[in-house]
Amino acid sequence: MTEPLDVAKLQRRLAEFAAARNWQPYHTPKNLVAALSVEASELVEIFQWLTPEESAGVMADPDTAHRVTDEVADVLAYLLQLCEVLGIDPLAALDAKIDRNERRFPAP
Amino acid sequence: MTEPLDVAKLQRRLAEFAAARNWQPYHTPKNLVAALSVEASELVEIFQWLTPEESAGVMADPDTAHRVTDEVADVLAYLLQLCEVLGIDPLAALDAKIDRNERRFPAP
Amino acid sequence: MTEPLDVAKLQRRLAEFAAARNWQPYHTPKNLVAALSVEASELVEIFQWLTPEESAGVMADPDTAHRVTDEVADVLAYLLQLCEVLGIDPLAALDAKIDRNERRFPAP
Amino acid sequence: MTEPLDVAKLQRRLAEFAAARNWQPYHTPKNLVAALSVEASELVEIFQWLTPEESAGVMADPDTAHRVTDEVADVLAYLLQLCEVLGIDPLAALDAKIDRNERRFPAP
Repeated sequence: MTEPLDVAKLQRRLAEFAAARNWQPYHTPKNLVAALSVEASELVEIFQWLTPEESAGVMADPDTAHRVTDEVADVLAYLLQLCEVLGIDPLAALDAKIDRNERRFPAP
Repeated sequence: MTEPLDVAKLQRRLAEFAAARNWQPYHTPKNLVAALSVEASELVEIFQWLTPEESAGVMADPDTAHRVTDEVADVLAYLLQLCEVLGIDPLAALDAKIDRNERRFPAP
Repeated sequence: MTEPLDVAKLQRRLAEFAAARNWQPYHTPKNLVAALSVEASELVEIFQWLTPEESAGVMADPDTAHRVTDEVADVLAYLLQLCEVLGIDPLAALDAKIDRNERRFPAP
Repeated sequence: MTEPLDVAKLQRRLAEFAAARNWQPYHTPKNLVAALSVEASELVEIFQWLTPEESAGVMADPDTAHRVTDEVADVLAYLLQLCEVLGIDPLAALDAKIDRNERRFPAP
């Protein structure tokens, strides 16, 4: 039986992966945010010439669906590695941000 | 007692937040990836003129630490909303990607 | 009488501006490309929630027109400074690229 | 004898290139800024794992020099096409921006 996936388990896998390849010296916060933004742009690249309607149907094509899922994984990988090196809890950060946004943009 | 944070719970909060403000029409996949890349760049902006060493110490300053944490939350928010509208499980996507990377870059 | 604007003259102004403020140490190619991508994302931010039609009418509003023009200037500023530190002639680079694209994508 | 390169001439070549391939419908301002940011990120990708020192020596390797020059051309191509569809004069925009910056950041 495998334990269910969670953020901490994925961060552990990512840290072990980087350590086994001696990649940690490259993983400064500055480099990780650059890599994160590059992966986010690779997602944009998939959508850049699509109409809004075409963009909504992107998962119907298996190749594009695979590409999008792959880039989502890359963005998440760099985000979790950044959080690891900076000591940020990403889920708590988002939860707190939604709280602030609820005060900032009151629902009508 | 509050239930522990997890990705599904945050996606639910984000969906309710957007629905209460009638923001869903704006949340096409194309727009969400653009917003994701903009937030990733706001992270880059914090680090753009720092040396690698300065970038490693960024959490020592409370104001910068808050700014970084806030941008991390924004990136995660758009990533989770994108996954929601496209039906992607982000943790499973990353787990599968690490599997592929382990085959692609064998540890020495 | 002022001489007409050209790329070389603007590069000279940018270099003098940076030198007068001792900013050259920050202007490594790595930092300049980061800054360039951040400014490009500030352009994206203006358009991220607009429909294609709304995006075409963006110059009709004077405030938005000013913002767009300002971000265009910032992108060009970092691109020209990058070219300066790397010894790239941007107009010749683009001319050569169009030549290559004409062979790569023959007109129907 | 060829006329010397200038921005207007390159914009004309880019417009003819797009028109010959019927690409104008894709060239909404929203799509062009997305493409611009994607190309800027392809520049970042070349530099993302380099130290500041390595980044300064990037043109010594002919392959990397070609890649950087090619991406610079792509960024400039989308910037000029954006200016064309929006009616912005990029050199005048930058000249005016340097004027404003000289007032905003007085030299010491």
